[in-house]
Amino acid sequence: MSQHAVRTANAAFYAAFERLDYDAMAALWARSVQVSCVHPGWDLVLGYDAVMQSWRGIFDGTSEIHFRSEDVQVTAGSAMGWVVSREILSTAVQGLPVENTLSTINTFVLEGGAWRIAHHHAAPLLAGKPRSTRKPDVVLH
Amino acid sequence: MSQHAVRTANAAFYAAFERLDYDAMAALWARSVQVSCVHPGWDLVLGYDAVMQSWRGIFDGTSEIHFRSEDVQVTAGSAMGWVVSREILSTAVQGLPVENTLSTINTFVLEGGAWRIAHHHAAPLLAGKPRSTRKPDVVLH
Repeated sequence: MSQHAVRTANAAFYAAFERLDYDAMAALWARSVQVSCVHPGWDLVLGYDAVMQSWRGIFDGTSEIHFRSEDVQVTAGSAMGWVVSREILSTAVQGLPVENTLSTINTFVLEGGAWRIAHHHAAPLLAGKPRSTRKPDVVLH
Repeated sequence: MSQHAVRTANAAFYAAFERLDYDAMAALWARSVQVSCVHPGWDLVLGYDAVMQSWRGIFDGTSEIHFRSEDVQVTAGSAMGWVVSREILSTAVQGLPVENTLSTINTFVLEGGAWRIAHHHAAPLLAGKPRSTRKPDVVLH
């Protein structure tokens, strides 16, 4: 039950993102906990106001964006949960189509009967290597 | 109370990592949920066995590693929680000291009375720009 609700909240997040709908995005984020966000390659963005400012900047700088998800893993309890997935985004940069694959986690809290997002973290895979041939022993950590 | 316990579990994770102690690391991960891990720049690693294999590869390829954390944010409920932070790691690559800053989230579940890690995600900041001058409007997402 929670699992379905968390999955639905996760879908609402991507729907707002695809619509570049700032008001919808602002309504989806939690207010009862300290929220935070890591956009691909960015430093940690902390707190509701800073997170919303980051979305405004992203939406203002984006003309279109679409997402597909792979390997979606939902973990949900009675009042908290998270969704781990691979996120394939399609967008346009200077008019040219770009596709990018990210490793993503979104966390959620139940707040006044609604599941709201508390943390979004999307990280780029290292460029230039197809996923299927990535070696597990080449990075620092 | 949960918050303190989750913070302690997070510290235990980094202690095992610094000791490059595979057995300690293996004991810290949850068995009751599907665990997953994203090492910096890696693709998503799914499932206990694959996650443990990734740690073995990392530990085998690492001679020493140390962590400092900044801006640690703990969110904890009765049976789930997460820690968001900036993770500054110091290691050596081919004998030369390297320091790297990562944006990190670790999620935890309470399992048989113990808080165990369910997901670790550490992502590199984009190279070549000091954090303080990073622009919020230059990335795809």
